[in-house]
Parts: sequence; C-alpha cells; structure tokens
Amino acid sequence: MGGKTSEGVPRVQSKGSGTLLDSPIVTGTVESPLSTGMKTKLEGHSLAGGLELDLTGETVRAVDPAEGRALDPEYHCVDPTCADAIARQAWDAFMEYRRRPDFDRASFLRLCADHIEDATEDLIERMPLETALPEARVRGELARTLGQLRLFAALVEDGSWVDARIETAQPDRKPLPRPDIRSMLHPVGPVVVFCAGNFPLAFSVAGGDTAAALATGNPVIVKAHHSHPGVAEIVGRAMIRAMDDCGLPDGVFSLIHGQGNRIGTALVRQPQVRAVGFTGSRRGGTALMKVASEREHPIPVFAEMSSINPVFVFENALRRNGGDIARGLAASVTLGLGQFCTNPGLVVLPRGAPADEFARNLARELAGTPDGDALNAGIASAYHAALRRLELRKDEDIKVHRSSRASPGSCRMGTALFEVTAAAFLRDASLQQEAFGPASLLVTWKEEEELQRMVRSLEGQLTGTVHATSMDMFRAGPVIEILQQKVGRLLFNDFPTGVEVCHAMVHGGPWPSTSDGGRSTSVGTLSIRRFVRPFCYQNAPDPVLPPALRNDNPLGIGRLVDGEATEGKLE
Amino acid sequence: MGGKTSEGVPRVQSKGSGTLLDSPIVTGTVESPLSTGMKTKLEGHSLAGGLELDLTGETVRAVDPAEGRALDPEYHCVDPTCADAIARQAWDAFMEYRRRPDFDRASFLRLCADHIEDATEDLIERMPLETALPEARVRGELARTLGQLRLFAALVEDGSWVDARIETAQPDRKPLPRPDIRSMLHPVGPVVVFCAGNFPLAFSVAGGDTAAALATGNPVIVKAHHSHPGVAEIVGRAMIRAMDDCGLPDGVFSLIHGQGNRIGTALVRQPQVRAVGFTGSRRGGTALMKVASEREHPIPVFAEMSSINPVFVFENALRRNGGDIARGLAASVTLGLGQFCTNPGLVVLPRGAPADEFARNLARELAGTPDGDALNAGIASAYHAALRRLELRKDEDIKVHRSSRASPGSCRMGTALFEVTAAAFLRDASLQQEAFGPASLLVTWKEEEELQRMVRSLEGQLTGTVHATSMDMFRAGPVIEILQQKVGRLLFNDFPTGVEVCHAMVHGGPWPSTSDGGRSTSVGTLSIRRFVRPFCYQNAPDPVLPPALRNDNPLGIGRLVDGEATEGKLE
Repeated sequence: MGGKTSEGVPRVQSKGSGTLLDSPIVTGTVESPLSTGMKTKLEGHSLAGGLELDLTGETVRAVDPAEGRALDPEYHCVDPTCADAIARQAWDAFMEYRRRPDFDRASFLRLCADHIEDATEDLIERMPLETALPEARVRGELARTLGQLRLFAALVEDGSWVDARIETAQPDRKPLPRPDIRSMLHPVGPVVVFCAGNFPLAFSVAGGDTAAALATGNPVIVKAHHSHPGVAEIVGRAMIRAMDDCGLPDGVFSLIHGQGNRIGTALVRQPQVRAVGFTGSRRGGTALMKVASEREHPIPVFAEMSSINPVFVFENALRRNGGDIARGLAASVTLGLGQFCTNPGLVVLPRGAPADEFARNLARELAGTPDGDALNAGIASAYHAALRRLELRKDEDIKVHRSSRASPGSCRMGTALFEVTAAAFLRDASLQQEAFGPASLLVTWKEEEELQRMVRSLEGQLTGTVHATSMDMFRAGPVIEILQQKVGRLLFNDFPTGVEVCHAMVHGGPWPSTSDGGRSTSVGTLSIRRFVRPFCYQNAPDPVLPPALRNDNPLGIGRLVDGEATEGKLE
Repeated sequence: MGGKTSEGVPRVQSKGSGTLLDSPIVTGTVESPLSTGMKTKLEGHSLAGGLELDLTGETVRAVDPAEGRALDPEYHCVDPTCADAIARQAWDAFMEYRRRPDFDRASFLRLCADHIEDATEDLIERMPLETALPEARVRGELARTLGQLRLFAALVEDGSWVDARIETAQPDRKPLPRPDIRSMLHPVGPVVVFCAGNFPLAFSVAGGDTAAALATGNPVIVKAHHSHPGVAEIVGRAMIRAMDDCGLPDGVFSLIHGQGNRIGTALVRQPQVRAVGFTGSRRGGTALMKVASEREHPIPVFAEMSSINPVFVFENALRRNGGDIARGLAASVTLGLGQFCTNPGLVVLPRGAPADEFARNLARELAGTPDGDALNAGIASAYHAALRRLELRKDEDIKVHRSSRASPGSCRMGTALFEVTAAAFLRDASLQQEAFGPASLLVTWKEEEELQRMVRSLEGQLTGTVHATSMDMFRAGPVIEILQQKVGRLLFNDFPTGVEVCHAMVHGGPWPSTSDGGRSTSVGTLSIRRFVRPFCYQNAPDPVLPPALRNDNPLGIGRLVDGEATEGKLE
C-alpha cells in the first residue's frame, strides 16, 4: 500500500510504469467548457488511495440525456485483476478503522457531509447534465444525502447502537457457575456498494449504504454507476478530503469505475469483502447474489430490486376523496419522472362509475404533466417497450387511457395509464412487471373474493398503500392482513414516494423487492444491521474489553445488564 | 386442512385410502420390551396435524450405539410430495398464529416446557438407548431445553423484543411535512428446523431454533434426526399436547420423519417456507444453502456447521497454570465424548519445556478418561478415519501422544492427542479439519510472526480462547486482534464448551462455522433476530396498529419515540 498524495488524489498509472502523478492515463479532456466553472477538476479516474490500478483500456462517458451527447471526461475502466489489491487495501484499512472510537467515525461522516455540501454548485452544474434531473431535485437529494450522513454520525456518537449486553458472573450458581458474558455489535468488514442509477446522491457514492457501513466501522468500496460518473467523482473527492482531514488510511473508502459485470463482480468475489449493497434491477441483483453465494465463503447481498407498490383505493374513500387521491397519485407517479423504487405502478379499485371517474381524473392529471428525459437511454427504451406490450393488448383485455411514444435515440418519456380487470390481471403474471417510468396500471375488481385473490397473487413489494375511510375497513381489513406478508411498509391514505430517513423507516420487503426477504432496510438507522455482527466476550479482563462493555461504562450508553436496561456502571 | 384428533395424534394413511385412524400404516411394532415402561407410546409416525401423509415405504430405526441393535418402532419416511401440503398447512397456521398476542405464545412455550418436563422419565429411558448419552447428560440437556423455552416465553411476555420505533408526524415541517412512521419486528413465516445429531433435546425438536421461531410468531416444521427419532417423538407429542391446550391450529408445529436429502430439501423448497435452521455438518449445511439460494424466492439458511475452537495458551499462563489448564482442557475436550460444536480441537502454545510438560499432562488426563460410545456409528467411523490420517504422518511431521482404535462395527471412541509445529500446520490446511470426537491437536510455535501467521490462516470459528496472564498481554494482544475477525465468541482463561443461554450469548461465527458470516447466533435471546423482519406502518389509524405501536402503549413496553427510549404513552 503506497502513500497518499497531499490532496488525496489517487495515483493512477498503467501497470509497470515507473512514476505516478506525472504520467496519468487521461485520454479524454477535462478542459471541456462544461466543467470550466467547477471547483472539482474531473479527472476520469478511480479513487483508490495509493494503489496502482491497471485499466482495461475501455472508458465510460456520461451522456447528457437531453442532448444525447457524451460528456467529458472519459472514465477509465479498472481491470478486474485489480480487485484483489483494492480489497486487500480495504481489509488493511479495516484493521485500523474498526478500532477508531465512535466519535472519530462520526467526525469523519460529518466532514464527508461538509465537503460534499461545499461541492453543491459543482453538483448543480454536473448532475443535471448527466441525469436530466432538475436543480430542485439535485438540491433535494443532496439535502437528503447530507442529512443521512449526519444522522448516522449522531447515531454512532450516541453510542448505544452497539446493543451492549452484559451478563454478570455468578460464581456460586448451581449446578454450574455462570461466567461473565458480554456482547456488542462489531463491523463485518469491507462492503462493496453499487451506485444506484436513479439516485446519484442518496443511494450512490455517499448514500445510505455507504453511510451505514462507514458509521459502523466498515470500509466501503464503491462501484460507480456508468450514468453519472462525474457526480460520483465530485462526491468521491469530497470523501477523500474528509479521509485526509481525519488521517484515515487508504482503503477506508474507494471509488471504482468500470463494468459492473467485470470489476463489480470481481470485487464481490474477493475474500476480504464481507457484504454487498446494491440498488437496481432484479437482473443485476440476482446476478450479484449468484456470485456471492458461489464464493468459497458466501456473503450476503443486500439488493433492493423491483417493486410496483400497489395502491388500494376502497369504495368510500373513492367516493369521498377520489379527486384528491387522483391528484396525489398523479404527483406520486410522476415524481422524478417515475424513476423511483416506490413509484405506485398499480392502483386497485372497485369497478363502477366512481372508478371510471377516478380513471378520467387521473388520466387528466397525468396528461397535464409534461414529458421529461429519463436518466439514460436504457430506461427510456425499456419503458417504451413495456408500454408497447400493454398497448398491443388494447383490443383484447387492456384499456389504454394514455400512453407515451418513444422518439428514436431520445430519452424522452411521457406519462401512461392503463386499465385491466382483476380477472385479466390474475390470468397474466407479466402484468406485475415493473414499467420503470411515469406509468401506472389500474386494476378494477367486482367481487371481494377476486380482490383478495389478486392481493394474494402479488409478488413481494417495498410498499403497499391503502386508501380507506373507517367505513371501508370491513373490506380493507382482509387486504391489510394479506398485504402484511407482501410488503415492508404499509401506508394509509398517503402515497409511497418520499421515503423518510429516520429510526422507524423500513425500506425493504419480501422477494423480489429485496434480496433478503425484507429482513433488512436500506433506508434509516435500522439499515446498519446489515453491516454488523454480534460479538461476544467471555470472562474478558476489563482492560481488554471495548469501552462499550467495560464495567465503568465510560461512554455512558444504554446497556442490557442481566436483562435490565440501564445506563449505569457495574459495581 | 382436516381436523385434529382428540389427542393431537396425526392421522396417517396411504394415499387414496378412505378412512383414517382405523388403518394406520404401522409395520414396526411398538410392543417392544424397551418401551413398555414409557408413558409416551411411540408410534413411528410424523406429527402433522390432520394431514394425510404419503409414505415412501422406507423406514428408519434408531440404533443403540452400545449394543448395535435396531430399536423399535420403525419410523416411516414421509414422501417428498407431501412437502407442499405440510408447508401450506404451516402457512395457514401462520396467518392465525402470528396474530396471537405475545402472552398467548408465551403460555404455549411454557406448556411445551411443562409437557416435555412431564416426559422426563420417558426421555431418561429412551435417549440413552438411542444416543449412548448418560442419564446425567439427559437431565442436563433437558434442563437447558426447558430453560430455553421458558426464557423465550419471558422474552415475549416482556414484549419489548419487537423493537418498537415511532416517529411522530410533523405536519408543519419544511420543506415537506413528516408523516407518522412506526415500525416493529414481525415474524417471517414458517421455519424448517433440522434436528442436530449431537443435541437430541437442546438443538432438536423443541430446541433453540424452534423456541426462537415459535416465540416470535413463526410456525415450525421440524425434520427429525435419524439417530434419535424416539426422543423426537416424545418431545413432539408433548408439543402437540401444548398446541391442543392452547387451541392452536394444525401446522403451528409439525414433526416430520424421513431422509434429509429428500423430504428435508423438499420442505426447504416450498415457497411458504421463509427460513431454515440447521445444526450439523458443513456438507449438510452447504447443501441446504444451495437449495435455498436456487429457489425462485431465495431464503436464508442459518446453518451452524464446523468449528475447531482454537485455544491459545501463552507463556506465563503456561508456566503458572499449565497444570490447571491441562486439566480443564481435558475436561472440555472429553465433555459429551467430544461431540460438541465448541469442542477445543486445537491448542496453540509456545514451543519449549513447559509446552512439553503441558502435552504430557494433557495426554495423561486424556488417558484417564474412559472410552465411550459415539452418538452413532457414522461419527465413530469418521472420527477414526480422521485419526488414521494423522497417525499416518507420525514419522513425518506429527507427534502422536495418544490415539484411539476403531473396533469394527462398534461406536466406541477413545481420546486422542496429536502435536505439530506451527510451520507444518501452516503448510497443510487439512489440519484444520474437524475430527468430531474427544481429540485435540497441539500446535507449537517458535517465532511470534509464525504465531500470527497461524492465527491469520485459521478458518472462521464459533469460539477462540486465550489463556494469558497480564504479563502475556503484549503477545496475546495481536492474536486477540486477529481472532476477533475469526470467531464469534472470545474467551479468556476459560473453556469453550458450555454455551450459556442468555441475552449476551453469541453462538455463531465467520464462515464456515456458520452460514451467514456470524451475523446471527443460534443460542440466546438474540437468536430471534434470524426469524423476524422489521415492518413499517405509515400514517396508520391507531385501531389498525398492533398494540405495540398504539399511542396509549397498552403493553407498557419500551419504545424508541422520536429517537428517545421511553415506556410512556404518546400524547
């Protein structure tokens, strides 16, 4: 592991080359007019401390979705053979980082937030170019990202996240004495985080997975997303600055560019890597799960994949608040051009005149939403292909309220609304497939039994929403009961987009919405559980114990002592 | 799902047969003199409520390890095609069982314990016959099993295990209002538990996995172990009685006999099954992991597999307490004839005269331990094969202090002690393979660097033990540091056998000691985390919420409200 340059800029070179910074391989240009005004100078390289990274020779460039033009600089793909060195550096860093006190790690997270915040103007310049997301979204997602980092800093500063448990010795217990037993949560080790295409900040380089892993003492290796490498570099450089400020060793945080199925899977295969965080497609998530389960030492992949987030509108709610619900739903469906994992892609309601009016209202609201540009061309083309499949069934079983037409070579997407009967929905499981974009499918039911069968037929989802008045509850009750086995978050008279970052949030659900059956969340403080393991000390001398478990409770944290919660010291 | 007979006895018949109890397929006899005195009448059938189970026609009989004779009755293997019905019945039961209040489930667990305790004399008669374990062990393991059930009952009675978290609404928050968000732990659904060969009570039908799953609202399908089907039936019938007492539906608990790689894997494949608990061989555990990961909806397998539980004796401890340590170690190695997952199979110490004396002392202690009968012939033959492989290297790199000879067809096992240098140990990874039985391997080191390399070379373990005085700590420190990444429990001046059942215990460690990298424990109250998932309610009306999350906190449990721990009500 080499030294680090003064500014935390990685020294990158081709294999065998003698010197470092003086001969970087930068074939693209950074003197593009696009980035002239930016404080951060984009260099197109991975950030991996002092490591000499081999490059494949291939490069990735962000594409401006609005104009279709490639953006500078070129990002150099790291060769999969480097995964070993990257993972080893992360492991070496782990040995030091895990021993840092909680308040050190909290300072680090706060500095990460501060330096990212310093780069606000750069992000406002670069992120819309790479993603077509408007400035307001950049500011909103940035605020969320900074808030997350600071929330995790506060969590570890408080200290009681370690779930300290102490059973004091009972030397006179019969038939056998009880030893002194103490446990707390320890970090698992280096975590590979894959950036999400649809959240360039909040689920990417310094997003929730990274914050949760770093907060609890795990180094993070981030694999950048090809759609927004420049945003990744801006955030990554801010992280490196924070590492330098804190004197952290190389490898606590790395940012790697390259192909997911090459350097990405190579990183997941490294024995030093102990967990994976992923937000993206079901195909991508299951591919990573396969790689992880075929390792000599299998590791967990926490993948958040697809979800159509069903919304159930019951009769009385529909009659009383149908207009408001349609407006709220339209706003939720079109938020971020429908490119959210909690986008409500399925609306279930009782057939009849109120449902027809609701459909007209919703279609009108959606029609009033201007088209926009998808994050990348792949999303737009998958979206339009999904719409086409539904439109083809127009004279068969699907009613097309409105749809969107693809313009060749463009990222343009418009809203879409389809309708189908519960009977038809039940006949065809493919109608549960996510159309990632501002579209939704109405499903109307006639018989209550049909409704319940429909709920039972649903795949696992991140969220489920019920719009019901108290008069609807006799019918909503059984649906809620079934939904509890289908979702991770159940909303009432609300809309699923907008995932609050807090202690009580659960952003995870049964398969295939997440990879681990909803046993974890990727948003909120509970998300740290993914990257920790309980560790137990038996009869350990006090000086050997970590502060959280010492007799005098120097951290003053809440602990479970002989089954009782206390913040006190031990006698 | 049919009804249940008055005594909870399953109605078993061949497929297509018309009537039920009047024509059970019992080809073995239960009138063996062996079971005459028993209160429980062993019938040789699976217990699966009212289900009609097809049988493969094959049967399993327990074998008395001491005499080598097969015991009545014959146990009928369930056909894998029945897995679907068994899992469906468990799922239907789940819908009811999960809604039962905590105190209902606590009563059920207490009644299970009471009825199993009522069967003490039956267990004392049957268990030694099936396992060669002495009466004292039966009583000890029974006490542990009852204690576990009652500890989990107390845990759920207390109610705060659900980790209730509430974030109150902030309608005036800027830029966006905050909704009301509440989360708690929910059960995951039916769990398949595989009985452990080496713990017929504490890790079997009503063992830790079963108690943890049932306590938190999950139905359990137990796959009996072929070595002790009679003990399984005695315990299973006690569980069924408790189910009847509590009016629980068929499927909350089932006990299935048959082949692990047929009915066992068939159960794991059922979509209704949501988790698996397993204690056994690495081969068995990894096979189940493969099945679970290849399901359409992958599920977690919590497998506790192999561990050699290294013990490090440092120089000053060796000089001062070598005699005591040798005696304690001999007792730990031979406890239960070495058939424990925490058996110390590796002892590491500095080469020299004190180590030589320690080896002589330990060998003498082991020589003083009489031979015994293994749980089954498979264990004895695998044990002796492992010893043979070491003995063959006698003139090469291994010193044989003592060994044990197999008697053909017998389950007899004696103690064994081998010695090797750290250099030789480092050359050959096969020396880390577990020899399941009363054997241990001494490893002596010369250079500190060699010691540390040796620790680094270790596979993941359930436990690691350090014998050190304060004067040894300068050398023990680096070993402890590395060991923390290798084990789940770290002991000081103690011995790893005897796993305390309490809130702070961690019985789980990095691969391959457990399947999930030590992120969970299979002993102690923390073990419930395996079978629960967080669930979130957003803006839910108070009456829809579970009691644990209601404003008036009717259970009076500790909750995290807006980040503060409190037992109070909400305004």
